[in-house]
Amino acid sequence: MAHNADFGLIGLGVMGENLVLNMESRGFKVAVYNRTTSKVDDFLGGRGAGKNFVGCHSLEDFVASMARPRKAMILVKAGGAVDAVIDQLVPLLDKGDIIIDGGNSYWKDTSRRSKALQEKGILFVGSGVSGGEEGALKGPSLMPGGHEAAWPHIKPVFQAIAAKVNDTEVACDWVGDDGAGHFVKMIHNGIEYGDIQVICEAYHLMKETLNLSTDEIADVFAEWNAGDLESYLVEITSEIFRVRDEETGKPVVDLILDMAGQKGTGRWTVVDGLDLGQPVSLIAEAVFSRNLSAMKDRRVAAAAVFGKPPVMMEAPEKTAFLNDLRDAVLASKMVSYAQGFDMIEAAAQDFGWKLNKGAIALMWRAGCIIRSSFLGRINSAFNEDPGLDNLLLAPWFKDRIVECENGWRRTVALGVLNGIPTPAFSCALAYYDGLRCESLPANLLQAQRDYFGAHTYQRVDKPRGEFFHTNWTGEGGSTTAASYNA
Amino acid sequence: MAHNADFGLIGLGVMGENLVLNMESRGFKVAVYNRTTSKVDDFLGGRGAGKNFVGCHSLEDFVASMARPRKAMILVKAGGAVDAVIDQLVPLLDKGDIIIDGGNSYWKDTSRRSKALQEKGILFVGSGVSGGEEGALKGPSLMPGGHEAAWPHIKPVFQAIAAKVNDTEVACDWVGDDGAGHFVKMIHNGIEYGDIQVICEAYHLMKETLNLSTDEIADVFAEWNAGDLESYLVEITSEIFRVRDEETGKPVVDLILDMAGQKGTGRWTVVDGLDLGQPVSLIAEAVFSRNLSAMKDRRVAAAAVFGKPPVMMEAPEKTAFLNDLRDAVLASKMVSYAQGFDMIEAAAQDFGWKLNKGAIALMWRAGCIIRSSFLGRINSAFNEDPGLDNLLLAPWFKDRIVECENGWRRTVALGVLNGIPTPAFSCALAYYDGLRCESLPANLLQAQRDYFGAHTYQRVDKPRGEFFHTNWTGEGGSTTAASYNA
Repeated sequence: MAHNADFGLIGLGVMGENLVLNMESRGFKVAVYNRTTSKVDDFLGGRGAGKNFVGCHSLEDFVASMARPRKAMILVKAGGAVDAVIDQLVPLLDKGDIIIDGGNSYWKDTSRRSKALQEKGILFVGSGVSGGEEGALKGPSLMPGGHEAAWPHIKPVFQAIAAKVNDTEVACDWVGDDGAGHFVKMIHNGIEYGDIQVICEAYHLMKETLNLSTDEIADVFAEWNAGDLESYLVEITSEIFRVRDEETGKPVVDLILDMAGQKGTGRWTVVDGLDLGQPVSLIAEAVFSRNLSAMKDRRVAAAAVFGKPPVMMEAPEKTAFLNDLRDAVLASKMVSYAQGFDMIEAAAQDFGWKLNKGAIALMWRAGCIIRSSFLGRINSAFNEDPGLDNLLLAPWFKDRIVECENGWRRTVALGVLNGIPTPAFSCALAYYDGLRCESLPANLLQAQRDYFGAHTYQRVDKPRGEFFHTNWTGEGGSTTAASYNA
Repeated sequence: MAHNADFGLIGLGVMGENLVLNMESRGFKVAVYNRTTSKVDDFLGGRGAGKNFVGCHSLEDFVASMARPRKAMILVKAGGAVDAVIDQLVPLLDKGDIIIDGGNSYWKDTSRRSKALQEKGILFVGSGVSGGEEGALKGPSLMPGGHEAAWPHIKPVFQAIAAKVNDTEVACDWVGDDGAGHFVKMIHNGIEYGDIQVICEAYHLMKETLNLSTDEIADVFAEWNAGDLESYLVEITSEIFRVRDEETGKPVVDLILDMAGQKGTGRWTVVDGLDLGQPVSLIAEAVFSRNLSAMKDRRVAAAAVFGKPPVMMEAPEKTAFLNDLRDAVLASKMVSYAQGFDMIEAAAQDFGWKLNKGAIALMWRAGCIIRSSFLGRINSAFNEDPGLDNLLLAPWFKDRIVECENGWRRTVALGVLNGIPTPAFSCALAYYDGLRCESLPANLLQAQRDYFGAHTYQRVDKPRGEFFHTNWTGEGGSTTAASYNA
């Protein structure tokens, strides 16, 4: 055993294979292990043939094959499998060795593992990896967090394999302590849910309002991809609309059943947003829309009961309509990212993480599913003003959203009046209008809570932090509530 | 010690005092205990003076004072305090005695306690109690669940003190196993968040569009309270707008700061909705709206940057506008309850609970914060068709929502075009339009997931359960993803 592999990987799924092929192509020698060891042989006899890999049939061999400090990345199904591999690996490692979980672990699990392994003297990194199969092979976005002492050791490999922006800036940097890397990856996935939902709503409006063909829709997305909406998801959307089914010759997209799947990371984002008191409404609507789409039988039954939607608003002519629609997409996307970055800031404050929002935008700028030129704008916004309170208040974003505003409103109104659901466009607009609203109707809400639960309220004419109670009915006394929750 | 108290209560907060006064007024003898025992003396010397209470200064006395099987209700702060009291109480009790947690416990804690106490031979009930201070005293809504063997023993007390509908139907019935009682109470609170938000949006639109005085707004809510919107919350809203500040003579509501508080039960509902795959979008928007309202400084800053909202749509004249607005409120409320009852059904299926949705509607029909004649309609709908798939498909609801639809759309469009945020109205409409949509754009979503993650899709022209993958780019092979989540 040569003890000289630069890196090791456990778990030869598609992602794992592609990641190690990427590493090997950059000059690193990589040890690979898989529980079903035939996969190791298959890989070395197949895609890995003739390359600088060390195939291992046991964890002992795997550990022995690596130079110190060892860098062992785990890429297995999130959950108990990660703990199981860690438990097997730890007794074989020395203090100062590094375990990297590159799977889709929930960040709280990563924080827990980080703490447990610190006590054992093992450096632990939980790294978000995004970009799908292709990204893993050609350059993923990498979001490592955990024990910072591991960073100098893994940085050469991570930054070598990560995606680059214009061949210079690297879509990988150290994120922060504990589960911060997986947290940021979770936000990435939540935002991905939002981006996808926004694109779907644009497609739905185009189809229902203009009755465009799939080729025409492909053209629209291609055009958008040449402007402020330039992004991987808009690009592949355009490509998707051009693909035809080999058997029938029909556009494949028209043959796909409208029942969305999901694996939970969008849901996690919303749950944590709720816990952090952050209104991540667009991601929430994206998750809910997937839920509703999955209720196909119920929808078919409801469609039969309620019939065709109304047409209460005449659509503008095609060019004007599509310009409005593009503005609605861009503005909604701005709101979604503003909500997501606010949530990152809230997490930094609540969990005591030092998170660099500009750097995070750069990590997402290339390699990952949400990569876009738009993220370059976000990177600039936070670099120019690291104390920026909300993305929408940055100069470029402020100017753009004001430009987009009227078209966005007309688009949502069209959906509203003509029965075409645009939950993400609508909730984003409601958020924007709420954000710019100096006085929301929450004064009434506080009055109600004080009325039925004696929850007290603050006054506009008194200092904040002073709480008042009104005896609204003239009965009931002036007791304030302690035990009733609402 | 007489060993003859019918019931016992631990925790003499406002709610506890009022509940036992209610019990005593119905002829029950109640033992009362509080950790700070001076509260017991204060109560017996004050509101409880001359009444049939047994004041106890120790848990031993408290337990000894009750007839068997003992029925000890705990009304303390949710969380560790409940476990602490249970731990102190259990060694003093005999098998077959009953512990009732009447606080705002999270239902999963109730399920856990239910299981633990079953092993000890103690019957455990987690009961939702709603109605605030006044309800507790005059007739709350009670939602007991847990060990059903306890029900015959506590039913006489519970049904005696509970609110009545038309003096006959009781707003209290057995809910179901484990934490089902607290689960249903949680949904109640989530729906309460939604009801409040919908009322607030109506107020906001009235104020901004018609510039109505508080007295005029009070009149509108009073009028609504005479129709399909008849409810406690609409009633108190009307009353709130008439109350004047003693010092300044101004309407109190205008002096209240628009920063909403919350204690978490709305958030819990949304989190569990997400876990159950249920799109409870209206409650989510209600929670998010409270979050956004609490960001007062950020809103003031954004208002200064973005200035006044636009006026892109002329408002209808007053009567027409208010009719539309009322329709928007009613329709949104229908959607919110449809979402909530779907979530109840999903929980019943996932957790193996037998939940009677008609009975649950009746429990909320009186006594609690969301009480309304509307809940009588829901009760009837589920009684007439216990297999009803979605509330909006029941005859009364279907007819009403179709009647309300155009006014609802005009109202949302007005908010959208004039910059007045109506997140709950909007998301409810998007849900309705999604529900009635036979084909949602989730086909594109599935195509995207298959493109970047090889997640596969089902086809409209093949049986469900068959999954397909397209090699979209002509590269990348036909591998389907196992490890990448999106």
